[in-house]
Amino acid sequence: MNYRVSIFPSKKLQDIANAYRKRYDSHYSLIPPHITLKEPFAAGDFEMESMVKKIRELAKQTKPFPLEVYKFSSFHPVTNTIYMKVREHETLMSLHERLNEGELGRHVTYQFVPHITIGQDLKDAECSDVLGRLKMETIDHEEMVDRFSLLYQLENGSWTVYETFLLGKE
Amino acid sequence: MNYRVSIFPSKKLQDIANAYRKRYDSHYSLIPPHITLKEPFAAGDFEMESMVKKIRELAKQTKPFPLEVYKFSSFHPVTNTIYMKVREHETLMSLHERLNEGELGRHVTYQFVPHITIGQDLKDAECSDVLGRLKMETIDHEEMVDRFSLLYQLENGSWTVYETFLLGKE
Repeated sequence: MNYRVSIFPSKKLQDIANAYRKRYDSHYSLIPPHITLKEPFAAGDFEMESMVKKIRELAKQTKPFPLEVYKFSSFHPVTNTIYMKVREHETLMSLHERLNEGELGRHVTYQFVPHITIGQDLKDAECSDVLGRLKMETIDHEEMVDRFSLLYQLENGSWTVYETFLLGKE
Repeated sequence: MNYRVSIFPSKKLQDIANAYRKRYDSHYSLIPPHITLKEPFAAGDFEMESMVKKIRELAKQTKPFPLEVYKFSSFHPVTNTIYMKVREHETLMSLHERLNEGELGRHVTYQFVPHITIGQDLKDAECSDVLGRLKMETIDHEEMVDRFSLLYQLENGSWTVYETFLLGKE
């Protein structure tokens, strides 16, 4: 089964993201707007049981932290993905690191750039066109994150939440 | 904000349901296959905070229970909805009742028929045609339920999980 770990921001921020995703994101109907903490990975039921315990522990040890979205950017030319950039908060960076090391490690080979995707699988011209327009817009939104979620993937490619983890709670 | 409370069954059962929903369910892309424990309702942030505490308590006091899906049925002629019927287990019925009484009460005026919707908003002819075919198929699936979820609705009509509640756990 495929799993992933994500933060779902507030309804307000999800609605803002969806206004763009509806037009530009091929995954619009597969998962709500999110920040990926752990990329999709395959795991068996038995293995997952032990990973879930580990993730619960991690959540307890992590305090709620501020989430700030401050500009539009893109992963072009690596991929034609457009996103809202999330400020690198110490707690967020450490949570990501701990979700991808030790027993939870899955050979992450790239640097973590916290973001909320609003467009992907775009053609070169559209990607640069849309990003050009977004660069002229301003976005500045801050909220608190007090939870994150573990999801699994259905056969149709969509994701169902398996469990939410409250930060700093027993 | 609009909220609802649902059980998401196993990936296996969700995949079975989605094979039908893809063709027959107008809400296919808005929410994964589910059993509704509490119909959509509007609540403010402050009110919700107290409701969430109440729901957490309820979950702790409820033991995991078996979920059995045993036939296809329909709400026709009330609505052209086709569903997989879920056996009325005492724990499921009591969980539904407690999620809709007292502080959590929202004037539920109809009888609770536990089910997983696989078709809705169908035309009369299609509804009776599809149901006729499904009535000749057999379905018999049993699994354990050990959690349920509180969701909120985004502006595009889709639902995001706010919190999962593990049954019988602190």
